[in-house]
Amino acid sequence: MARYDFASDNAAPATPEAMASLAAANSGYASGYGTDATTARAADLIRALLDADAEVRFVGSGTAANALSLTALCRPFEAVLAHEHAHILTDEAGAPGFFGQGLGLIPLPGASGRIEPAALDLALAQAEVSYRQPPAALSLTNATEYGAVYSGEALGGLAGAAKAKGLGVHLDGARLANAAAAGFDLKAIKALGVDVLVVGGTKSGMPPTEAVVVFDRGLARRLDVRLKQAGQLPSKARFMAAPFIGMLEDGAVLRHAAHANAMARRLAERSPFPVRHAVETNGVFVEMDEPTLQRLHAAGWFVYRFLDGSVRFMCSWATTAEAVDSVCETLAAIR
Amino acid sequence: MARYDFASDNAAPATPEAMASLAAANSGYASGYGTDATTARAADLIRALLDADAEVRFVGSGTAANALSLTALCRPFEAVLAHEHAHILTDEAGAPGFFGQGLGLIPLPGASGRIEPAALDLALAQAEVSYRQPPAALSLTNATEYGAVYSGEALGGLAGAAKAKGLGVHLDGARLANAAAAGFDLKAIKALGVDVLVVGGTKSGMPPTEAVVVFDRGLARRLDVRLKQAGQLPSKARFMAAPFIGMLEDGAVLRHAAHANAMARRLAERSPFPVRHAVETNGVFVEMDEPTLQRLHAAGWFVYRFLDGSVRFMCSWATTAEAVDSVCETLAAIR
Amino acid sequence: MARYDFASDNAAPATPEAMASLAAANSGYASGYGTDATTARAADLIRALLDADAEVRFVGSGTAANALSLTALCRPFEAVLAHEHAHILTDEAGAPGFFGQGLGLIPLPGASGRIEPAALDLALAQAEVSYRQPPAALSLTNATEYGAVYSGEALGGLAGAAKAKGLGVHLDGARLANAAAAGFDLKAIKALGVDVLVVGGTKSGMPPTEAVVVFDRGLARRLDVRLKQAGQLPSKARFMAAPFIGMLEDGAVLRHAAHANAMARRLAERSPFPVRHAVETNGVFVEMDEPTLQRLHAAGWFVYRFLDGSVRFMCSWATTAEAVDSVCETLAAIR
Amino acid sequence: MARYDFASDNAAPATPEAMASLAAANSGYASGYGTDATTARAADLIRALLDADAEVRFVGSGTAANALSLTALCRPFEAVLAHEHAHILTDEAGAPGFFGQGLGLIPLPGASGRIEPAALDLALAQAEVSYRQPPAALSLTNATEYGAVYSGEALGGLAGAAKAKGLGVHLDGARLANAAAAGFDLKAIKALGVDVLVVGGTKSGMPPTEAVVVFDRGLARRLDVRLKQAGQLPSKARFMAAPFIGMLEDGAVLRHAAHANAMARRLAERSPFPVRHAVETNGVFVEMDEPTLQRLHAAGWFVYRFLDGSVRFMCSWATTAEAVDSVCETLAAIR
Repeated sequence: MARYDFASDNAAPATPEAMASLAAANSGYASGYGTDATTARAADLIRALLDADAEVRFVGSGTAANALSLTALCRPFEAVLAHEHAHILTDEAGAPGFFGQGLGLIPLPGASGRIEPAALDLALAQAEVSYRQPPAALSLTNATEYGAVYSGEALGGLAGAAKAKGLGVHLDGARLANAAAAGFDLKAIKALGVDVLVVGGTKSGMPPTEAVVVFDRGLARRLDVRLKQAGQLPSKARFMAAPFIGMLEDGAVLRHAAHANAMARRLAERSPFPVRHAVETNGVFVEMDEPTLQRLHAAGWFVYRFLDGSVRFMCSWATTAEAVDSVCETLAAIR
Repeated sequence: MARYDFASDNAAPATPEAMASLAAANSGYASGYGTDATTARAADLIRALLDADAEVRFVGSGTAANALSLTALCRPFEAVLAHEHAHILTDEAGAPGFFGQGLGLIPLPGASGRIEPAALDLALAQAEVSYRQPPAALSLTNATEYGAVYSGEALGGLAGAAKAKGLGVHLDGARLANAAAAGFDLKAIKALGVDVLVVGGTKSGMPPTEAVVVFDRGLARRLDVRLKQAGQLPSKARFMAAPFIGMLEDGAVLRHAAHANAMARRLAERSPFPVRHAVETNGVFVEMDEPTLQRLHAAGWFVYRFLDGSVRFMCSWATTAEAVDSVCETLAAIR
Repeated sequence: MARYDFASDNAAPATPEAMASLAAANSGYASGYGTDATTARAADLIRALLDADAEVRFVGSGTAANALSLTALCRPFEAVLAHEHAHILTDEAGAPGFFGQGLGLIPLPGASGRIEPAALDLALAQAEVSYRQPPAALSLTNATEYGAVYSGEALGGLAGAAKAKGLGVHLDGARLANAAAAGFDLKAIKALGVDVLVVGGTKSGMPPTEAVVVFDRGLARRLDVRLKQAGQLPSKARFMAAPFIGMLEDGAVLRHAAHANAMARRLAERSPFPVRHAVETNGVFVEMDEPTLQRLHAAGWFVYRFLDGSVRFMCSWATTAEAVDSVCETLAAIR
Repeated sequence: MARYDFASDNAAPATPEAMASLAAANSGYASGYGTDATTARAADLIRALLDADAEVRFVGSGTAANALSLTALCRPFEAVLAHEHAHILTDEAGAPGFFGQGLGLIPLPGASGRIEPAALDLALAQAEVSYRQPPAALSLTNATEYGAVYSGEALGGLAGAAKAKGLGVHLDGARLANAAAAGFDLKAIKALGVDVLVVGGTKSGMPPTEAVVVFDRGLARRLDVRLKQAGQLPSKARFMAAPFIGMLEDGAVLRHAAHANAMARRLAERSPFPVRHAVETNGVFVEMDEPTLQRLHAAGWFVYRFLDGSVRFMCSWATTAEAVDSVCETLAAIR
């Protein structure tokens, strides 16, 4: 049977800390729809993590979190600027258009998933015409789909250029913990110009939950009704919030992310295949032809060929050094 | 601090059985997006419960489950016939219209939440005109919002009338377990003409999860893409499916529902206030004026005034006889 | 063959004035999408008619005009308050929900199509809860579906109550000309608190065209893209604008509306059937049982039974005194 | 003042034939919403033109016609394959996504606006995965945006490949008349596999109107309600249908298109600038640098730089040989 250890960071189970706080939240009666004490506590921890005031909600998937964030920034006749390989463009089945009733997506190029500043400038300089959806938001991803980390300066530069033109800024933080473990300063996010942030729960080691963080409370007007209408305000909301408590209370989320990053470095160092992108967080992208990938699959390790043609190995909080060494032995053998 | 024991059946925690299977599912790596063994096992158990072949998926809220079910049966220019106090009409913030891009809802009357057959016939007999959304589906709820149970015959009669006119049939089973515990035969549902069924997880004692059951596989075409686009196909899908395993493997779901129903009967018997609807499942609706309700709140018991003006007490798997007796003592005192 | 003279005011042809300016606009080349001189001239005439600054656009149907107006005022998770028999609720096939992706509609009662102020107050006083779409706009219709005219004071009272709660105000003026001919002051509309107005072209005697008037330019941001995306920014826009020129340049629109109103009064005076609503504009609603209506149809006059059960006779710019007298003779005969 | 003679074929006025039948239709009372005799007559003429049975409706813009056609073939979680420079992708402000609630668009390459068959095959061969909208329709354009004409064989080949995979086929015929005048057989369209066709009115010399032709009546179910909900079923529908009568009754539409095509050939022959695409219909695309284009604008001729970087000159029914010669003299002068 295939092993999924490196297929994705969402193939891993949830961490003990997340499961413990989930179990702890399952006690007694609680008021519904996010008005409970568990949700309040998790939101406080998120605000502390970011050192910022914000509205915080917990939803069931990154796809929903991103799409709802974008509808807070754009109307159907507007568009979102994003990296051409951003998750919202390539992996979410058109959710931004579904939640946003036709909201447009404008792809931008850039190495290792980072948007090229000149490409953003060009897009922002386009004249508005009635037959084209003008950009109303910039969506960034940190760490990127290729595991690269925007520095605060780089991210702030892009966000600033967008804001100077009146656009809103969304940050997809599905792997924000990995970026943080690599040095990205979470407490600077608000000041960098981000309006709506998604703090990933799933990929950092939780059951399905993501935090939507709206820094500008004006953008959060009637947020609970929006979530309810979109099927993202479950009555037993405490179960969505609880995993964040265990992960944030004692810094577990960063500790686990640092481990995942370290495992990726270990894998990259031992990989007999060339690594395409600098390993800054928890993903390793190697050059591998199709017959070799098939041999790897046949040897019981399932991994994906990614959008840029490289083969992706994702490490997670659960990745063991033994598993890294084991897959690297297989890699050496099938080479 | 207010006690929420009777505010709603979703104020209760999750059952030990649901939590145990959730914890058990949190082991090792799993492939994503519902392709895992936990999801497969839970779907098998649902099919066995219903004694029917069907596509089964697990989503994060009843609102999403219902709305997605309706979009499988109707297009934006069509409408759904439902009881005027059905959850989809009164408690889901317009989710059917949001997921269905303007899908219409046509309210029908009927006692205790059951649709009056004559009212359905009248609606079905309406001539189609270009300026009105014609009904393309009938939505039923069992148990109803007022705790009433449709018999198989009654439900089949309504479904049959709808199907004779070419409509699809949706069954909102947020409290299907309570109906089953009251004698409703789950294995007859498909034969009664239901096309899409929602089997409630939350209100029957699970963390946020609902099963969407599509009996006609033609209606389920590309269902995974639909769910993904709607933010309802989480990568770690095993967490949505797992609670159903513990609840279904040894019949816990019906045992807990029977308990909830029994607690409601106990409360009704001891209520010093007149009961408005026959207590067939886990809700008790009593006549109570506003000052009295305020005194009840002041005494520390939080319950809602419902759509028909009565005051609702909901029992759940977690309701204890002691809590029932305690609230009834308070009721006697504030009367 | 059935005569449609009184079936609706949209069964009439276009006026000579409208056709003449349409023909006049059909000369030479013009830039597209509303940037042409004909469109500019028509917009100026609308602004002069209303004595107000505003963005003005011309769209192809009242349904589109109303729905687009409402999406300028509300988001999908919000709702519109309107009379229960308002055109947007009963005759537009759910267009507000389609254009507004689930935008809700909240029906309010009131005699002769006018909203009862107390009912509005009640709706505005409702507490906001996460499971219900809160009202973000009030939609009024003048003249109403029953031909009644809101006075400036009455309309301003309703609009003011809505605005005091932060709602926007939409005025459906499909028959605004008839209201104006009955004394409603068009130049006061902006001051009364209306944010978006639809000035009906079709029912006042034009080919299919309606003017959307956005008084608050902030609400009109990127309006051309919105219209384009909604299929309502035709390249040859001059044809949508042109009819307004002939109808507004010399006051033809009011002259024709006054005639239509006079014909309705004549019909009401000669009707042998009781008139249900005061005849203030161009519609006459009479009490008539079904066999009698069938005899009327059999006699070659087609008219509709309306929402309140009465039978509606609509007069238009094209209605002749002879036709009124002729239908009244038939009415006397079939009585 | 700038002359728009060559800016677009929609900058021209309407033809005498179209205006005459519009005026003729403006006589007497007519039943509404497309149930009138003018609409029936125009639909018959369309069916005769295509030698095929079909449902025919008339809507107000090509954008609406295309978007509504695509929603008849696809659901929100599906996508449309189209040329990367197709009008639906580049010039309709995201209308397919708005009407289709997130309906996806997948761009395909190909010379002169024709889809490259190998690229289509590649797209059709893609495995379906839950995170990507699978194609459910192929959209073709004839004549293409670059004035190229698909032969019946070429179009049938693409349509056949799509249909073999279960996709529907849409044909954007904004310039179908020009293709027909260049030899494309209209009577073969249905047999080639097209499911929904838009026959352009505007660009062929009419006021704003387009015919939507649904060959498969199953796809047309409740089409009138769809149109009404989308604001595309005006009460005075006869005005949308009428222009087609004058243009189709005696073949005027093809005569005018042949003239436009001839004018384009004349312009291409006399152009001192290299022509980029073979001139098969009514557009001429020339290589011209930006300073030269600015000089052309300064000389009073307004034309657009197009998507492929060439400068586009469009001829229409109204283009005169004198205007062609005049612009060519200017071209020679500014060269």
